[in-house]
Amino acid sequence: MTRISILGIPNDDNSSYLKGAADAPALIRQELHSDAYSIWSETGVDLGAEGRLVDHGDIGFDGDCDPWELIERHVGQALASGDPLISLGGDHAITHPIMRAVRRRHPRLTILHIDAHPDIYHAYQGNPRSHTSPFARIMEESLADRLIQVGLRTVNDHHREQFRRFGVEVIEAGQMGAGIRLDIATPVYISMDLDALDPAFAPGVSHREPGGLSPRQVIDLIHAVGQPIVGADIVEYNPHRDISGLTATVAAKLLKEIGGVMVRNARMNAV
Amino acid sequence: MTRISILGIPNDDNSSYLKGAADAPALIRQELHSDAYSIWSETGVDLGAEGRLVDHGDIGFDGDCDPWELIERHVGQALASGDPLISLGGDHAITHPIMRAVRRRHPRLTILHIDAHPDIYHAYQGNPRSHTSPFARIMEESLADRLIQVGLRTVNDHHREQFRRFGVEVIEAGQMGAGIRLDIATPVYISMDLDALDPAFAPGVSHREPGGLSPRQVIDLIHAVGQPIVGADIVEYNPHRDISGLTATVAAKLLKEIGGVMVRNARMNAV
Amino acid sequence: MTRISILGIPNDDNSSYLKGAADAPALIRQELHSDAYSIWSETGVDLGAEGRLVDHGDIGFDGDCDPWELIERHVGQALASGDPLISLGGDHAITHPIMRAVRRRHPRLTILHIDAHPDIYHAYQGNPRSHTSPFARIMEESLADRLIQVGLRTVNDHHREQFRRFGVEVIEAGQMGAGIRLDIATPVYISMDLDALDPAFAPGVSHREPGGLSPRQVIDLIHAVGQPIVGADIVEYNPHRDISGLTATVAAKLLKEIGGVMVRNARMNAV
Amino acid sequence: MTRISILGIPNDDNSSYLKGAADAPALIRQELHSDAYSIWSETGVDLGAEGRLVDHGDIGFDGDCDPWELIERHVGQALASGDPLISLGGDHAITHPIMRAVRRRHPRLTILHIDAHPDIYHAYQGNPRSHTSPFARIMEESLADRLIQVGLRTVNDHHREQFRRFGVEVIEAGQMGAGIRLDIATPVYISMDLDALDPAFAPGVSHREPGGLSPRQVIDLIHAVGQPIVGADIVEYNPHRDISGLTATVAAKLLKEIGGVMVRNARMNAV
Amino acid sequence: MTRISILGIPNDDNSSYLKGAADAPALIRQELHSDAYSIWSETGVDLGAEGRLVDHGDIGFDGDCDPWELIERHVGQALASGDPLISLGGDHAITHPIMRAVRRRHPRLTILHIDAHPDIYHAYQGNPRSHTSPFARIMEESLADRLIQVGLRTVNDHHREQFRRFGVEVIEAGQMGAGIRLDIATPVYISMDLDALDPAFAPGVSHREPGGLSPRQVIDLIHAVGQPIVGADIVEYNPHRDISGLTATVAAKLLKEIGGVMVRNARMNAV
Amino acid sequence: MTRISILGIPNDDNSSYLKGAADAPALIRQELHSDAYSIWSETGVDLGAEGRLVDHGDIGFDGDCDPWELIERHVGQALASGDPLISLGGDHAITHPIMRAVRRRHPRLTILHIDAHPDIYHAYQGNPRSHTSPFARIMEESLADRLIQVGLRTVNDHHREQFRRFGVEVIEAGQMGAGIRLDIATPVYISMDLDALDPAFAPGVSHREPGGLSPRQVIDLIHAVGQPIVGADIVEYNPHRDISGLTATVAAKLLKEIGGVMVRNARMNAV
Repeated sequence: MTRISILGIPNDDNSSYLKGAADAPALIRQELHSDAYSIWSETGVDLGAEGRLVDHGDIGFDGDCDPWELIERHVGQALASGDPLISLGGDHAITHPIMRAVRRRHPRLTILHIDAHPDIYHAYQGNPRSHTSPFARIMEESLADRLIQVGLRTVNDHHREQFRRFGVEVIEAGQMGAGIRLDIATPVYISMDLDALDPAFAPGVSHREPGGLSPRQVIDLIHAVGQPIVGADIVEYNPHRDISGLTATVAAKLLKEIGGVMVRNARMNAV
Repeated sequence: MTRISILGIPNDDNSSYLKGAADAPALIRQELHSDAYSIWSETGVDLGAEGRLVDHGDIGFDGDCDPWELIERHVGQALASGDPLISLGGDHAITHPIMRAVRRRHPRLTILHIDAHPDIYHAYQGNPRSHTSPFARIMEESLADRLIQVGLRTVNDHHREQFRRFGVEVIEAGQMGAGIRLDIATPVYISMDLDALDPAFAPGVSHREPGGLSPRQVIDLIHAVGQPIVGADIVEYNPHRDISGLTATVAAKLLKEIGGVMVRNARMNAV
Repeated sequence: MTRISILGIPNDDNSSYLKGAADAPALIRQELHSDAYSIWSETGVDLGAEGRLVDHGDIGFDGDCDPWELIERHVGQALASGDPLISLGGDHAITHPIMRAVRRRHPRLTILHIDAHPDIYHAYQGNPRSHTSPFARIMEESLADRLIQVGLRTVNDHHREQFRRFGVEVIEAGQMGAGIRLDIATPVYISMDLDALDPAFAPGVSHREPGGLSPRQVIDLIHAVGQPIVGADIVEYNPHRDISGLTATVAAKLLKEIGGVMVRNARMNAV
Repeated sequence: MTRISILGIPNDDNSSYLKGAADAPALIRQELHSDAYSIWSETGVDLGAEGRLVDHGDIGFDGDCDPWELIERHVGQALASGDPLISLGGDHAITHPIMRAVRRRHPRLTILHIDAHPDIYHAYQGNPRSHTSPFARIMEESLADRLIQVGLRTVNDHHREQFRRFGVEVIEAGQMGAGIRLDIATPVYISMDLDALDPAFAPGVSHREPGGLSPRQVIDLIHAVGQPIVGADIVEYNPHRDISGLTATVAAKLLKEIGGVMVRNARMNAV
Repeated sequence: MTRISILGIPNDDNSSYLKGAADAPALIRQELHSDAYSIWSETGVDLGAEGRLVDHGDIGFDGDCDPWELIERHVGQALASGDPLISLGGDHAITHPIMRAVRRRHPRLTILHIDAHPDIYHAYQGNPRSHTSPFARIMEESLADRLIQVGLRTVNDHHREQFRRFGVEVIEAGQMGAGIRLDIATPVYISMDLDALDPAFAPGVSHREPGGLSPRQVIDLIHAVGQPIVGADIVEYNPHRDISGLTATVAAKLLKEIGGVMVRNARMNAV
Repeated sequence: MTRISILGIPNDDNSSYLKGAADAPALIRQELHSDAYSIWSETGVDLGAEGRLVDHGDIGFDGDCDPWELIERHVGQALASGDPLISLGGDHAITHPIMRAVRRRHPRLTILHIDAHPDIYHAYQGNPRSHTSPFARIMEESLADRLIQVGLRTVNDHHREQFRRFGVEVIEAGQMGAGIRLDIATPVYISMDLDALDPAFAPGVSHREPGGLSPRQVIDLIHAVGQPIVGADIVEYNPHRDISGLTATVAAKLLKEIGGVMVRNARMNAV
C-alpha cells in the first residue's frame, strides 16, 4: 500500500506582516481527522485505511539549531522511507529548506506552485529568507528543473525580471479561463499557498487577494497532474484571520486530494 | 394561475453529527418574505403575486405519531390540490417519507438530487433512517424511475456499490466542467441539499465539503430542467453553523428559482 | 504619466432599506493603502507610483446645499484636470448627479453598469432619487448613449418595460456562461455596484442577492474594456453588513483593476 | 394556569437608519422553541407547559390600514383575554400604539424602559413616529403614570429637556454600579430594547452602543420587578447585523425571563 | 517542581444535540502554546517552565474497548505520577469515568462544577451516559463527598428533585452578585463546562445560554480555591460553533489559571 | 470652548506578532463620525459642536525621517495650541515618542495606562522600540512622575522586577473587584490599549487575553479621573482581527468618553 508521510512545520519567523501560520498544523490535522468529514479523496482513495498516513509530528523549533537546518534534516528523515511527504506550514519561507531535502532524492523535478503571489522577491526588508522570497532561493540553488506558478495576481516589474532570470513559467489567475493544461514530464512537487484561493473560500490567510481560484479549480489542477507527486506543502494558513474555520476545512480537503493523487499516480507507475 | 405549496418539515432526528436543521424552515421563510429582496424569480415569475404561494405551515412532531407517517400524510395532503410542493427541511432523512407521498401521484418520476454526498448508505450507525441513507430506502422501494445525483465529492467504495445496485446516474462535482446537460423525459422531483454548494456560499450546513458548486451553477441546473417539477425539497440548512445568515439567504433564493421553474414549465405544458 | 482622481461621495440619503454606504469611502481607501497588499494592478500598472493617485478627499454634505448639486459640482471640478475619476460611494443614487458632470465632458459615452439590480425603477416609495432609480433619471436626461447592464438577477416586469423604453442592453447573470464579449466604440464609464458580486465574495452590501459574479468574472470584464475609461464609481459597500472586512478588500481590488485599465488604455490611445 | 400571549409586530417603517427589525419575530420564536435550549425560566416556570404560551401570530401590514391603528387593535384583541402580552418587534416605534391599547386596560401603570437611547426625541427628520420618538408620544398622551429609563448612554441636551418636561426617571448605564433598586407600586410594562445590552452580547441591533448592560444585569432587573407585569415588548433586534445568531438567542432568553416573572408575580397576587 | 499532566479525551458520543466537542483538545493545546500569548498564569506561575506540563496526548477511541473503561484507565495512568491532571474534553459525559479514576486516589473530595446546566438528569433520551447526566452517575456512585454547582441558569423541577436526592449545593448565576465565597475543606476537583460563560465570551458551545459568567468571574472563582486542586476537566468546547476562535482562546486561558492554582496551592501545602 | 486635537499615528513597525494596527486611525474616525451613533459623550459634552474636534490628519511615514522623531515632532505641533490631544495608533510602541513631546509641556504628569500587558519589557527580540517595551523607555527617560497600570493579566517575573525598578503602581484585572479608586494629584495622560478589554468586547487586537475589562469598567475609570487630561492615546486596534467592526465601534466610544472628560475637567479648572 502506498503510504503518505505528514510533517508539521510550525514556523512563521519570516512572515513580514502577520505571524500566526505557525499555529496551523494542529488545526489542519484536526479537520483531517474530524468525524464530520469523509476521509476518502475524490480519486477514490481511502486515506483513513490503516497505515496509510504516517504522521511524523511537528518539528520543534525551541532549541538553538538553525531552523533551516532543522527543516532540511527532518524533511530528509521523513523522505527516507521513500513515501511521498505532505508538509504542513508554517509560512511559505519553509519551502526553501524543504526543497533542499527533496532535491537530493529527485534529480528530475518540476515544482507546481499555486499562489496569489510569486514569492520570488530577491529579498524583502533585507531578509533573504522572507516568506516573499523562497522561490528566488530555490531557483538560485537549482532545486528544481522547472517552476510553474499558477494563480498569480500581484505581479510587479521586479517579479517579471525574476521570471526572466529564472525562466519561471507563469499562469496568472486572469489567464486560467476555462481551465489550463499542464504538460509535465518529471516527478512533481506541489507548493500550495492557501491564498491562491479567493478569500471568500480561504479567509484565513495573512494577505487576502480577491480574484482568486475556487477550491474546485485547485482540485481540478491537482487531479490533472499525471506524474508522480513526490512531495507537497500546504502553507500560509493563518488561523488568526480565519472565519468560522472555513480555511482549516479547505486545507484538509486539499491535503486529501493531493494525497489521493499521490496514491493514484503511484499505482499507475506500479503497473 | 399556477400555485406553489410550501410545507415546513422541521425534523432532524436522524442527523448523525449535528442537530439544528429542524430550526431551518422559519428562517428560510423569513428571508423569502423579507423586504430586503425581490420576490421575482429570474425566470420572470412574480412569486409574490396574490395567492401564488400556499403555505401549509410546519408539521408538528410533538405527539406520539411516527414521524415518517406524519410526513407522508402531510405531504400527501399538500399535494392533493395538484399544485407542486416545496418542502423545507429538516435534514435529508425526510426525503424518504416525502417520496412515498409524491410517488403515489407520479407513476413516472426522475429525482434530480443535488448534494455533496450520495446519502445512499445502506444504514449508518445502525439507523436505516439516517440522513445518510434516504436514497437507499427510496431506491429499494422504487419511489423513482431514475435517480440523478449531481455535485458529489465524497464518494467511497460502498457508495459505488450502491450506485451499481440501484442504477444511480452520478455527476460528481469534478465532472461538471463548463456545465452539464440533463436529458430527462419524465416529471422531475428536485432534492436540494444545501451542502452541494461550496461552504463559502453556504456555510450553514452540518458537513462542510469544499470544492462545491456555486449558487449560479445550481440555479443554471434548476433553470435547465425542461419537464414539470412536481415537487422539491430544500434540506440540511443548519442555522447553528451559519455565518451572518448567508445560507438562509441562498436557501430562499433557490426556493424562488425552483418555484419560478415550476410556474414556467407548468405554463409550457398548458400550451 | 496618466493620473487618476479619487473622490469620496459619502451619501446614502436615498437608500431605501439600510443606511451605511456613506461610511464606505474611508474604509476602501484604508484597504487601498494598507501594507498588507500589493498596489500594482494585474495589468502591470503601479498605482503607488508617486503622483499616480490624486485624492480629492470626501464631499462634505453637512451644509444647506442640495446634495445633487454638490456632487455634480465636485465631480465637475475633479474632472477638470482631464484625468479619469473613480468615485467611491455612497449608495447607487449618486451615479445620477455624477453622470450629469461626466456627460458634459463626453458627448460620446457608454455606461457599463455591473450590478445585481437594474436600479431603473421609475421611482421607489415616491422618491425619484431612490438608489433603485438612478438609471431611469440618467436615461431620461440622455446622460449616456448606451447603457449596458451586466450581472442582473432581480428583473421584474416593470424593469423590462423600462429596458424597452430606454433601449437598455441587458446581460443577466444567468446569461454570462463562459464569459461575455463587450463591443463598445465610445469612451466608457463603469458603474460598479458591489452587490453584482455573489454575497460570499461581498457580504457587505445592503441587499445580498445570491447567484452573483465572482471577483474574477468582474475583473475579466473590466480588463476586457478596450476603450478609454473616463470615469467609474464603486458603490453600495455597506460596512455594517460586512464580514471580517472581505468587502472592503474586494472594493479596493476593483479600484486597482479599474485604475489599471484606465492607465493601460490611456497609453494605447497615446500611441 | 397563567397564560402568556405572544404577538409578532414586524414593522420597521420608522427606523431612521437601518431597516431589518421587521424580520425579527420569526427568528426569536425559532430560538424560543429550538430543542437546543431549556424552555424553563430561571424563576422556575415551565413556559413549555401545555397551553402556557398563546401565540397570536404576526400582524400583517400589507393592506391599506394605518399601521398604528392595526397595532393598537391587535394588541387590544390579544389583551382581551386578560393574559399578559409579550410583543415582538419590530423597531421601537411600535411601543407607542402598543401603549395606547395597554393603557385602556391599566389606569395605573409604570413603564420600565431598558435601552441605550432615551427614544424621546420630539421628532426625528420630521417624523413624529420615528423609532427615536415613541416615549415623547407616550408621555404626551399620558399613556403611563411613570416612565423609568434604565441603561441609557447617549443622552444629549434635548433629551434632558424632555426628561424634565415629562418627569422621566433616568438611570444611566454609568449609574448602575453594583445594581439598582426599583421602587414601583403599580402594574408594570417592560419595554426592552435589545441595544440596552452591550453590543458584544447583542450585536444584532441597528445602533451598537458600547458600555451597555450584560444579559445578567438585565435578567436581574427583570427578576427584581415585584409588581404584576401586564405587558412587555422586545424590540430592535435586527438580524441583518447579528453575528452567528447571538442576539436571537438572547432575545429568546429575555422573553423567557419576562414570561417567568409574569407567571411568578401572577401567582403571588393570587395568594 | 510541581508538574501538571494534560490528557486529551476527544469523545462526544453522548452529546444529544451537536457533536463536535471531540475536535476540541488539539485546538485548545494550539492556543495554549501559541506565541501570541503569555504562558504565565495570573498567580505568577510559569507554565512554560521546562518540564512543567506533561502531555499524555489524546486517548484513541477507535478500537473495540468500551470508551468508559478506556477513559478510566488512561486517567488512572496519568494520575499515577501523583501530579494533578487537567483533562481536555470532549463533552461533559466524560466526567463520569474520569471521576471513577480520580476517586480511587482521593477519599476526601469536593467537586466544584461550573456550568450553565446541572447535567444531573437521571437519563436523557434513554441514555444514562448522556452529557446531561454525568453528575447523576457520579453522585449515585459516591464519587465525591460534595458537589457544588455554580453558574446554573436552566434549572427545572426534575433537577431540583435530583439536587435534594443527592444533596447538591447550588449557586445559580442569578445568585452570584458581587462574588461568592467557597468554603471547602477537602481536595478539590474542578469540572469546567465552557457554557458556564456567557455566549458572548464563549460562543463555541453546543448550547448557548445567555446570562452567564464572565471569564473574570470564573478566573476569580478558580483563584479563590484554597485547597489542593487534584484534577480538573475543561469540557464542551465545540469548535463548530465558535466565532473567530474566541472560545479556544478562553479555554486555554482557563487551563493556565487552573494550572496556576494547582501549582500555587501545592506550594502552600509544601510549607 | 475647549477644543480637542486628534492625530492619527498609523505605525506598527514594532509589532512583534501581527501587523495591522497601522490601518486603525481611518476606521476609528469613520465610526466616530458615522450617522449611526450619537456624538455626545456620557458626560454631557457635544463633541460634534462646531470646532470642537481639530483633526490634524495622519502622520505620513513614507519618507526617510526616523519615525520616532516624526511622531515627537507632530505631537509637539499638535500640542502647541494648548488643547488636549488624542492620538490614534498604531501599536503601543508609539507611546514612547508621544510622551517625549507631552512631557516637555507637563512637568507634573501621571500616566494612567489601561492594558492587558505591562509593555515594560526591557527589550523584545532585541528591539528596544518593541510594542512590548514603551513603558521601560518612558520610565528610564522620566517622562512621567507616576505610572499606574490597570487591567494587567499577563505579568511575569521580569515584569515584576521592572515594576520595582521603576516604582510602577499596578492594579491587575483580578484586583479590580467592584471598582477602583484613583488618587491622582497631577495632570493625567491616558494610554488606552484596546486589549485591556475582554476579547468579547474588543476582538480586533493582536493579542487577545480573556478575563479583561468591560467597556463599562473602562468608561467608569475614565470618568473617575478628576484632574485635567492633557493627552491620551488609543492604540493596538488591529482591524485584521476584528469581528463585524465591534472593536472600531468601541474605540470610537472610548475616544468620545475621553474627550468628554477632557472638556468636563477643563471646565472645572476654569471655574
